[in-house]
Amino acid sequence: MFTTRRTVRIEWGDCDPAGIVFYPRYFAMFNHSTELLIERALGMKKYALNQHYGLGGYPSVATKARFLIPTRYGDDVEIESSFTKVGRSSFGIQHRLSLNGALAVEGNETRVWAVRDPSRPAGLRAQPLPEEMATRFSTIAA
Amino acid sequence: MFTTRRTVRIEWGDCDPAGIVFYPRYFAMFNHSTELLIERALGMKKYALNQHYGLGGYPSVATKARFLIPTRYGDDVEIESSFTKVGRSSFGIQHRLSLNGALAVEGNETRVWAVRDPSRPAGLRAQPLPEEMATRFSTIAA
Amino acid sequence: MFTTRRTVRIEWGDCDPAGIVFYPRYFAMFNHSTELLIERALGMKKYALNQHYGLGGYPSVATKARFLIPTRYGDDVEIESSFTKVGRSSFGIQHRLSLNGALAVEGNETRVWAVRDPSRPAGLRAQPLPEEMATRFSTIAA
Amino acid sequence: MFTTRRTVRIEWGDCDPAGIVFYPRYFAMFNHSTELLIERALGMKKYALNQHYGLGGYPSVATKARFLIPTRYGDDVEIESSFTKVGRSSFGIQHRLSLNGALAVEGNETRVWAVRDPSRPAGLRAQPLPEEMATRFSTIAA
Repeated sequence: MFTTRRTVRIEWGDCDPAGIVFYPRYFAMFNHSTELLIERALGMKKYALNQHYGLGGYPSVATKARFLIPTRYGDDVEIESSFTKVGRSSFGIQHRLSLNGALAVEGNETRVWAVRDPSRPAGLRAQPLPEEMATRFSTIAA
Repeated sequence: MFTTRRTVRIEWGDCDPAGIVFYPRYFAMFNHSTELLIERALGMKKYALNQHYGLGGYPSVATKARFLIPTRYGDDVEIESSFTKVGRSSFGIQHRLSLNGALAVEGNETRVWAVRDPSRPAGLRAQPLPEEMATRFSTIAA
Repeated sequence: MFTTRRTVRIEWGDCDPAGIVFYPRYFAMFNHSTELLIERALGMKKYALNQHYGLGGYPSVATKARFLIPTRYGDDVEIESSFTKVGRSSFGIQHRLSLNGALAVEGNETRVWAVRDPSRPAGLRAQPLPEEMATRFSTIAA
Repeated sequence: MFTTRRTVRIEWGDCDPAGIVFYPRYFAMFNHSTELLIERALGMKKYALNQHYGLGGYPSVATKARFLIPTRYGDDVEIESSFTKVGRSSFGIQHRLSLNGALAVEGNETRVWAVRDPSRPAGLRAQPLPEEMATRFSTIAA
């Protein structure tokens, strides 16, 4: 399975007064992992992607996470990300964040392909994935 | 049902290059609504709560959200929050964020009661809700 | 002097493991106060401003701050913001954040007027303030 | 001079609707570089430091920055950090963030050594640097 892995140092500024990660920060980490996964899948940075397709940023339509083990500043965690499903205009991604080999946080998200459309609320409109992209995502998600 | 409502102005800094809210920011908004809900339920600010109970911050153990309508900087959204269930050491909260009366984001989270325990990873240990609190939460969740 | 004032509740998620505001969050608060100051000065929200002038967001070119008293979650702080100077293509803003009447943080920033320019790095180009705006800012900064 | 260097990828979530870094995020990057600089100077992670010295996190008392070139998502920037001065209970750090070899942001900050003191506002009290640390910082700042 096509998977990206990266090591992330938990920062002081990621943590709350309990000394552990303020959980919205996990979603920011997962979001960046999604960008890197798609960048690697397509061989194109998101900026180039946006220029090329008039894209408005494949926004999330649903996300969920389970927090199993707290992590704190100074921890080096590993995040593994991979495609879980590829639909006509949406795709799913799973993130597994582990600390010392143990699963600490698991996240799942569904994204849609969105192009800029000034006539719509917030200027975005979902649309089918470009064919070459749907093919590529499906192949590597298999 | 015991519910808190607040109006939140979406800030420039909450938004990403697509001009819409960077979704981890919604979880930060929901987190603050949870604090306000519990503050109002108990008549005690979180700082006092932490001093009183040696609490480490009722961390999330699970969360999920659906993003239905994008919101952008300058929007004034309303967030409604209420208890959904109260267990022995955990409780559930639902947040409904709406824009011009239409549901834009729905979030559900499960929290646990945690006290400081220096002998544990990240110094936290879940434990049963103090009895007066379980009673209070159950009453207002009904 | 034309001044905006707002009360901000310090959130759990604004604070670090020392229990006090993670200082980059003060700049996010000041940034929003700047938006509100300009919105009130011009009677136009930033979104409308960007549509009207092709604006890319009056970015900061310099900022500084002094942190005199730490603030923590649950504190209600007051932020006062006003223009300090108005130049040809730049303007200065001062923010004073106080806790229980005592100055806790003071921030000063210089902003430039910037329009979108796809031929430039990051797609922005500084330019003189529109005349009606320079006049308006100068009047209220006096 | 004792200097740490690291490469940081600018993330989508670091950027605002103008497509460039939301400047409070630069301070979060600088803050982490400060942690890494002190960790490397002392050979001890901040968590161990806090345990060892009862430290509350060397908070900033003053900071300033100049923003010379905007950076955007996908940019790989380099941050160089070094000590500028070491006083009795405070020390200065400079950060230089560059893009393709050109200085994009320069930041300077003054930090104080602070220990936990429950009798004080926000529970912190500045105090002289431990002697071995003052010696170490002074040596490498020279």
